[in-house]
Amino acid sequence: MKKVNLKQKFKLFNEHWHPHILAELNQQEVKIAKLKGEFIWHKHKNEDELFLVIKGTLQIALRDKTVTLKKNEFLVVPKGVEHKPIAKKEVHVLLFEPKGTLNTGNKKSKLSRRKLNTI
Amino acid sequence: MKKVNLKQKFKLFNEHWHPHILAELNQQEVKIAKLKGEFIWHKHKNEDELFLVIKGTLQIALRDKTVTLKKNEFLVVPKGVEHKPIAKKEVHVLLFEPKGTLNTGNKKSKLSRRKLNTI
Repeated sequence: MKKVNLKQKFKLFNEHWHPHILAELNQQEVKIAKLKGEFIWHKHKNEDELFLVIKGTLQIALRDKTVTLKKNEFLVVPKGVEHKPIAKKEVHVLLFEPKGTLNTGNKKSKLSRRKLNTI
Repeated sequence: MKKVNLKQKFKLFNEHWHPHILAELNQQEVKIAKLKGEFIWHKHKNEDELFLVIKGTLQIALRDKTVTLKKNEFLVVPKGVEHKPIAKKEVHVLLFEPKGTLNTGNKKSKLSRRKLNTI
């Protein structure tokens, strides 16, 4: 049982769009990621996904609108809803979602990350 | 699907030790609370509980040590582990735990809050 300092954890990796696991609880995972550029359109069949911005400005494009998240703002994208994260500048984001959620959801992509490290 | 601004949500209530629900996802809830003073020793039989400090300094006493959490730091208290939150000055905290988790866990107390509002 050790505390986790978010700022320290973000210093441990640099790759964009590659989530790292910080903690597991109740069959859910807390992950962080650095984002830059445009991700791909995708959806998660069974998982709701929470994006909490720690640093920067994250746009989450939905089919009918785009939500812009700044520091200390979050959005829950429900299962089945197509979305596309966009970070014009680097964004630090915290994710809450079920254990094993694949970052690219229903899409196979070179951006898919099936093996995540716990840091 | 609306974004949630944490700072704005903390302005909507003042009572200490009374969690408010911000969002539900995957049978979990995201809650926030303002804490000040000492809570009671308790544990949760079936629920792991995450405390993320948004503002202030939160001590979480465990039976064998005390963990001190500052802004942007979190701790996961596993099910079955006795703990007692202590806030010498007011703390703003975000909680992530299964839907319906009772704030006082296995203890009945005047601090128990069985009906929580979604804000």
